Amino acid sequence: MGHDLLDHHVTGRGPARRSPGAARAADRVGSSRIRELLDLVDRPDVRSLAGGLPDVSLLDPDRVHAAFEAALAATGPLGPTALQYGPTAGIAPLREHLAGELGVGPADVVVTTGSQQALDLLARSLCAPGDVVVLEEPAYLGAVQAFRSADAWLLGVPGDDRGMDVDALASLIDDGVRPAVVYVVADHHNPTGSVLSPGRRARLLELADRVGAVVVEDAAYRDVHWGPPTRALHGRGARVVHVGSSSKVLAPGLRVGWMTGPEDVVAAVARLKQSADLHTPTANQLVVAHLLTDGHQPAHLERLRRTSRERSIALATALRERLGDRVTVDVPDGGMFLWLRARDGTDTDELLARALAHGVALVPGSAFTLDGRPTTNARLSFATLAPELLVDAADRLDRAW
Amino acid sequence: MGHDLLDHHVTGRGPARRSPGAARAADRVGSSRIRELLDLVDRPDVRSLAGGLPDVSLLDPDRVHAAFEAALAATGPLGPTALQYGPTAGIAPLREHLAGELGVGPADVVVTTGSQQALDLLARSLCAPGDVVVLEEPAYLGAVQAFRSADAWLLGVPGDDRGMDVDALASLIDDGVRPAVVYVVADHHNPTGSVLSPGRRARLLELADRVGAVVVEDAAYRDVHWGPPTRALHGRGARVVHVGSSSKVLAPGLRVGWMTGPEDVVAAVARLKQSADLHTPTANQLVVAHLLTDGHQPAHLERLRRTSRERSIALATALRERLGDRVTVDVPDGGMFLWLRARDGTDTDELLARALAHGVALVPGSAFTLDGRPTTNARLSFATLAPELLVDAADRLDRAW
Repeated sequence: MGHDLLDHHVTGRGPARRSPGAARAADRVGSSRIRELLDLVDRPDVRSLAGGLPDVSLLDPDRVHAAFEAALAATGPLGPTALQYGPTAGIAPLREHLAGELGVGPADVVVTTGSQQALDLLARSLCAPGDVVVLEEPAYLGAVQAFRSADAWLLGVPGDDRGMDVDALASLIDDGVRPAVVYVVADHHNPTGSVLSPGRRARLLELADRVGAVVVEDAAYRDVHWGPPTRALHGRGARVVHVGSSSKVLAPGLRVGWMTGPEDVVAAVARLKQSADLHTPTANQLVVAHLLTDGHQPAHLERLRRTSRERSIALATALRERLGDRVTVDVPDGGMFLWLRARDGTDTDELLARALAHGVALVPGSAFTLDGRPTTNARLSFATLAPELLVDAADRLDRAW
Repeated sequence: MGHDLLDHHVTGRGPARRSPGAARAADRVGSSRIRELLDLVDRPDVRSLAGGLPDVSLLDPDRVHAAFEAALAATGPLGPTALQYGPTAGIAPLREHLAGELGVGPADVVVTTGSQQALDLLARSLCAPGDVVVLEEPAYLGAVQAFRSADAWLLGVPGDDRGMDVDALASLIDDGVRPAVVYVVADHHNPTGSVLSPGRRARLLELADRVGAVVVEDAAYRDVHWGPPTRALHGRGARVVHVGSSSKVLAPGLRVGWMTGPEDVVAAVARLKQSADLHTPTANQLVVAHLLTDGHQPAHLERLRRTSRERSIALATALRERLGDRVTVDVPDGGMFLWLRARDGTDTDELLARALAHGVALVPGSAFTLDGRPTTNARLSFATLAPELLVDAADRLDRAW
């Protein structure tokens, strides 16, 4: 998922308390110091590359209004559909459309309250306390929190620019580790932006099948690509769960995601969803169904991809020009993030403090480690700023470095 | 909550699978036979008293449209607010309004994806596996499912027309039972419609305080009343959690609920919500905030109460006239339900089959027991049908009886 909880926190400063709670299952991710620093990025004088937010201003307002009008106009025997209770697994038009896209039957799709909910329900469905979940580290924090809430035992394996190091996974298995779940963001990983290579995809599926692990493929960024197409994991392994989201291609505030996978997993998620929130809001599902089928989505995606690519190039070029061989930064072919690796040993936790003093924000790699240890990496979002502001952000980062 | 999962199921027939799943935590409530029968209530020739749905057609469409327009017009530094990520605990205007209503600070309120999510997050926050949760039986199914998902041990105590039998709770405590949670629908209980008496309220709080139990007060129906005002439990006991909902007073399809309570519980729920779904959809919160503050809500509530009361009287009167001393039925002073008790020993599971054959539906009391055992009770909703249709439903029930 491209949203991550740190970013979410950044944009969500409210009166929330931070006192220790009675929770037996709660997040333990992210050092409080980093969170405190990231609280500062909303200052108007800060160029924030720290967000995990898409640029919702790229959505055509007239199109959004039309979708809401259509949602409000829908009526059924129980009154206005948008206002009434709906089916737990999602409204039929949305499930049918998604099923067509995913090459499954409508009964194989559960609509969730954002893909974050799919991860939470999957963690609760698939993991007994102490079960092992393997994921690539650096990791998407929302997945870490969801699996930790289910009292799973998380094991990180390293990744590189071709995604998760599946040989490291193989070594774990050779050592007797039997993961219940392997969680993977195969396309435009958050935070690294990497794409899992075809060879590693095949090997991952083979390893998972061998030990009966469920592969959870988080495809939140899959449609925000401008590189060569990849082959999804879904439909290839015995037990692959595909998790999708409208957050990166439409609007995260709608909170509409979905999942599909083996029949027993779909049934378990649907049953647990019933007590989790009854169903995802009806109006939001109607809006997403309308936007995905109104005929304008291909052009919108095209524009989103073109704009994102331009921004990624602008930021990567500016960073290379200014920071030179102090860093390594690759231009991704999708998603929202650049992954910057300091070659001069810079601790990015410390860099963040200096960067904020110079009016630019990024997320230190420590935020994506399982134990919060400092790193020499950082995640930089190119999703929301125009190219000239990205160049200015690179200037500021250069001065801070 | 007035929605319940059986009703929800009724209105939610889709392609969902029913195969046994891999869930370690899933619902075990409701006999499959009852569910099969209730699948029939959507037939157009059936007068359904089985729903747990409010009558959303009582909402003024112009008012709803204005609320959506206001939601879509809100913008911030991150683009259109309705479309962007928001704070985990809820948007400030809604939390501030609710805090004012509840007599707490905005930091004490968490907005949830329906009050069902509040119950789910509370169950996960407050209950370790095997912890005891006491509730009134017959019980709201959504609460049963939420606490069972957290592997709590549910103990039912009986209730009557004055609500939960707190002496039965006292006996349990005298016997050494130490509940982690006492769950109570003190106002217009689902399914019985009862209101917890003032004396029992005081005794419940005293018992809970004595053993350190958290009282979860589910106030979903609290604002749909036409009887004398009651005194909420919230704010009176040491550890009382208040759960509220917009579903019965505005529209359940929006899925906006909320909770407040002791600081540590609020913090635990907020932390767990982050991995559950990041936040409740932004647009929906903006819509509810607008509807609760647009100045028209008092008149809307007045109309909802008047209409509901008329319907409750129409149904109760017709049932008494037709079924006579075969049943006991009291006119409630709030909520959406009549609770019918057969004095002639009629098994209401069997009655449902006959009723459907005569074109009328109700929910047998067995659906609200912890073990699904047959009963001589039934829940009848007066919320959605006009008085003349309620009378016709009573006619049909008389013929079926």
